[in-house]
Amino acid sequence: MDFQALQQRLRRFAADRDWQPWQTPKNLAMAMTVEAAELLEIFQWLTPEQSLSLGDDQRRHLGEELADVLLYLVQIADHGGVDLEAAVERKLAMNAVKHPPLQKP
Amino acid sequence: MDFQALQQRLRRFAADRDWQPWQTPKNLAMAMTVEAAELLEIFQWLTPEQSLSLGDDQRRHLGEELADVLLYLVQIADHGGVDLEAAVERKLAMNAVKHPPLQKP
Amino acid sequence: MDFQALQQRLRRFAADRDWQPWQTPKNLAMAMTVEAAELLEIFQWLTPEQSLSLGDDQRRHLGEELADVLLYLVQIADHGGVDLEAAVERKLAMNAVKHPPLQKP
Amino acid sequence: MDFQALQQRLRRFAADRDWQPWQTPKNLAMAMTVEAAELLEIFQWLTPEQSLSLGDDQRRHLGEELADVLLYLVQIADHGGVDLEAAVERKLAMNAVKHPPLQKP
Repeated sequence: MDFQALQQRLRRFAADRDWQPWQTPKNLAMAMTVEAAELLEIFQWLTPEQSLSLGDDQRRHLGEELADVLLYLVQIADHGGVDLEAAVERKLAMNAVKHPPLQKP
Repeated sequence: MDFQALQQRLRRFAADRDWQPWQTPKNLAMAMTVEAAELLEIFQWLTPEQSLSLGDDQRRHLGEELADVLLYLVQIADHGGVDLEAAVERKLAMNAVKHPPLQKP
Repeated sequence: MDFQALQQRLRRFAADRDWQPWQTPKNLAMAMTVEAAELLEIFQWLTPEQSLSLGDDQRRHLGEELADVLLYLVQIADHGGVDLEAAVERKLAMNAVKHPPLQKP
Repeated sequence: MDFQALQQRLRRFAADRDWQPWQTPKNLAMAMTVEAAELLEIFQWLTPEQSLSLGDDQRRHLGEELADVLLYLVQIADHGGVDLEAAVERKLAMNAVKHPPLQKP
């Protein structure tokens, strides 16, 4: 996925609807959290095991909510001045230090 | 960004720590929401305008939280059986239908 | 508000619908977060100033979401073994230590 | 619990720290969601069964997060002009209509 191209498409989409005044990181962070919770709602009454074997409708619904979260996420990165790929690599490196792998025989 | 390669790295990371039993979509959706809220926390007492001009420390913090959300997001897609790129394209098409562009003179 | 009486009503409500197996703190915490995000959604595109002067429909909607959060909150306290009033008093005391009042002339 | 008395205490607490400009429903809703997610974090890697039998430290932690959510909730009701007890009764009545009890023999 090309994040920069996607960010350009989303900027154009907002401009074509005069949405720019609402596109602040504060507002976009609220919107992303709302979408994350809509995704959470899919699983709230399922057991962990049930959440591993979704039906087709549930999987399609999950895909929509994942897309909603991702679309706001790339907009927050864009309007907040964050290089998302670099941030991911830095985080992966931090996680590897924070959580060393198990020593297996 | 290559989501499939990232998903492979994260599966390997979990396997090296024996974390697989916890990697259910239900649990991962909880973890993603927790990270989304940590990102939200950055902005809770800022004005919308202040959220547009972050300092270096805030931008680095924002990058960490964006990465945390994205890392859980790609794991949910992986364990939930969702093709993330296809889901994004479908959602963009749905949004274009749902919100027609303004007619500008 | 009598939390214990409310908790009894909610236990009865769940029992009359055979919902007890789903009433775990984990699931209830997910449901409470979903409701908190529905409340957040009311405000996502409003300015902070606009959020101070809601119309009648928005205020009614806000009341519904506040009630939803509170109903799950008292159920989490109930099933998690927490005395809510004692927890509030302890937290108020902690906050007073953590954030001393300004010295005003 | 006397919500009006608690709301008065929290107004006084904010005034003593000159926090009033930040006490908008938009900001308070963000803060409440952040606290809800901190509560969610307690349960993210527990099984539903484990969440029913918390240890003393976990129960104390849960009490703190429940109190945090409740304190923001009553402030949102206060600054948003919502009568919380009336909203709860209305919601309970709506839920009873929406989810009729099972007919048991």
